Amino acid sequence: MYLDRLNNLKKLIEKEKVGGVLVSSVANITYLIGYANFSKEERDCYLLVSQKEQMLVTHSLLALELKGIDHGFKVMELTARSKFKNIFLSFIKRHSIKKLGIEEEDLRVSEFKRFSGFFKNLVGINLEELRILKEEDEEEKIKKACEIGDLAFENVLQKLKVGVSEKEIAWELEKFVRGEGAELSFRSIVAFGKNSAIPHHQTDNTKLEKDQFVLMDFGVKYKNYCSDMTRTVIYGSASKKQKEIYEVVKGAQEKAVGFVRLHSGSAVSDENKKIKIIKLADVDKAAREFILKSGYSSIPHSLGHGIGIEVHERPHVSPRSSEILEKGMVFSIEPGIYLPAGRHGIEDFGGVRIEDLFYFDGKSLVELTHSKKELIELK
Amino acid sequence: MYLDRLNNLKKLIEKEKVGGVLVSSVANITYLIGYANFSKEERDCYLLVSQKEQMLVTHSLLALELKGIDHGFKVMELTARSKFKNIFLSFIKRHSIKKLGIEEEDLRVSEFKRFSGFFKNLVGINLEELRILKEEDEEEKIKKACEIGDLAFENVLQKLKVGVSEKEIAWELEKFVRGEGAELSFRSIVAFGKNSAIPHHQTDNTKLEKDQFVLMDFGVKYKNYCSDMTRTVIYGSASKKQKEIYEVVKGAQEKAVGFVRLHSGSAVSDENKKIKIIKLADVDKAAREFILKSGYSSIPHSLGHGIGIEVHERPHVSPRSSEILEKGMVFSIEPGIYLPAGRHGIEDFGGVRIEDLFYFDGKSLVELTHSKKELIELK
Repeated sequence: MYLDRLNNLKKLIEKEKVGGVLVSSVANITYLIGYANFSKEERDCYLLVSQKEQMLVTHSLLALELKGIDHGFKVMELTARSKFKNIFLSFIKRHSIKKLGIEEEDLRVSEFKRFSGFFKNLVGINLEELRILKEEDEEEKIKKACEIGDLAFENVLQKLKVGVSEKEIAWELEKFVRGEGAELSFRSIVAFGKNSAIPHHQTDNTKLEKDQFVLMDFGVKYKNYCSDMTRTVIYGSASKKQKEIYEVVKGAQEKAVGFVRLHSGSAVSDENKKIKIIKLADVDKAAREFILKSGYSSIPHSLGHGIGIEVHERPHVSPRSSEILEKGMVFSIEPGIYLPAGRHGIEDFGGVRIEDLFYFDGKSLVELTHSKKELIELK
Repeated sequence: MYLDRLNNLKKLIEKEKVGGVLVSSVANITYLIGYANFSKEERDCYLLVSQKEQMLVTHSLLALELKGIDHGFKVMELTARSKFKNIFLSFIKRHSIKKLGIEEEDLRVSEFKRFSGFFKNLVGINLEELRILKEEDEEEKIKKACEIGDLAFENVLQKLKVGVSEKEIAWELEKFVRGEGAELSFRSIVAFGKNSAIPHHQTDNTKLEKDQFVLMDFGVKYKNYCSDMTRTVIYGSASKKQKEIYEVVKGAQEKAVGFVRLHSGSAVSDENKKIKIIKLADVDKAAREFILKSGYSSIPHSLGHGIGIEVHERPHVSPRSSEILEKGMVFSIEPGIYLPAGRHGIEDFGGVRIEDLFYFDGKSLVELTHSKKELIELK
């Protein structure tokens, strides 16, 4: 598995016409060596890869641990005698590298200036495309993360009661996920009532009242792979307006899924099947237009995003996406309608978002999250 | 409080002879506006500050929330009509800025190239020094984080038993901290037996056995401020060798604290007091040499590190530190001895680290963590 990934990286190095690449992002390093326990704040590790050699450069605190893993990379430990500059320059020389690829989206300006000081020809190359199509093993891990998320959702519904706070509910979600041996893939958003109208609401001490929306957007990380889901339920009875916007959001997601089914050729018999090109921008459009036609404002965010080692990665599912749907992609579809309090003739309104993960099997979007999608009224 | 910080930033802008600064790091933005709920993966916000104006640039998902906070910054929302480039260039023009400071340690190469495309004179300036001396309010928050850490340590001792795993103990620590309304400031290190010889051990499913070292390195984040502490206890009875290395490590910390007391002038009467200069490299040396003289290898990491909004920030307490001890600094002192398994004539050995946080009040190091420091044998 890791050897295939390394070979794909080497193909990319060839395609990009560089002699090698310096990999710095935690996500790409994790993808290539299967180890993820790096600091998010400090630089723990770089990979140096050419057609003939792959090495991992790390400090002494991590070297022992990284030497103990079977990843096919030579581990170089930074010490007073073995400095990064020397390791780097000898790598460049050994492989007669004229141009070295770097991850411009990850590398800091200070690092760039330092490295440029001893080697000028650093060129940006994007390694994210390596991870855009998921292997079976990756899909399995994401699916497992989704399963844990579904269980967490089922469990948390029982914790909703008048007076409970958003933070308490977020903590219940986390406790459950951790109890399953996984962790959260990002800080959960729990939003009650009018807070649900803020797509990126910061979970706070707001207390739950009757007949309010409860929006929960959370994800699970299982063996380095992320899930992401959102459900909006009513604690009590839904008003006509609440039901209406819920149904529009649900319909918008169905539109996006239906668009893919219709245009991928899966609706026609195999004999007549042609390879159809589906733009992800058009998947976004299918859902977005449905919401607009229903009389609501356009979704104030992308319809969805790719997911895997990172919660947000390629492909983009947005109006500006230039990507084409391909077999093996995994992404979210998460339409939403957000009605801020006081602006719509209703004193205390809110929002609805429904988010699921999908895997494209070449014909249709296979849903990886399985929580109930009909409006839940907890009475 | 935030106004003082902004004024200090403006003084720094003047000192650095730039017309303004683009603040990008989450830690510095949090320090300046008191809001921390930003993504660690994606760029949510920039600050643009000149002598006459301070603005915050963010995307629409956060704009509403950031407008609701009293931070003294004008909130500029990125939209299709109001793009970063325009906001940025009009700021540059309005204040006739010739040079703009950037945080080179934080800004990505891709951002630098993009911004350079419309304004060439970007120069690196280091804003971390703004946070090096803690205000009373900050010290209080760190102290409170330390208190929660002390309670968590006391609580977790009761969870140690034969067969429990490192991960379970880490989870007990976290549950306690979260139950106190705080969170962890970093992923806890829990290391049993020979794992304690790896300073940066990745907590795993190793099960606890009798008479082993239990090393726990963890921290609390309370109102955006971090604590950090390490204790090493024996589950069972300590051998002579275990006791010996424990006492050397404990003695090393005392040496560092004693060094400051002796050289700060606090040992002499106020009348004769002179302002003494204490180099943090010498504080490191005091502990390091004590360990060497006791016949053990030098600490394979810095003696300590500053702490505040980030777990690791200035000042550096290491052999290569060029910093001088000043009133208001808060940092860890964390000597350690690590004896890898099999290398010392003992089949299964381990390590000891003792870490506490200290505040320098101008005379001596005031300990902020209060957990028992005598060797604990849990029988």
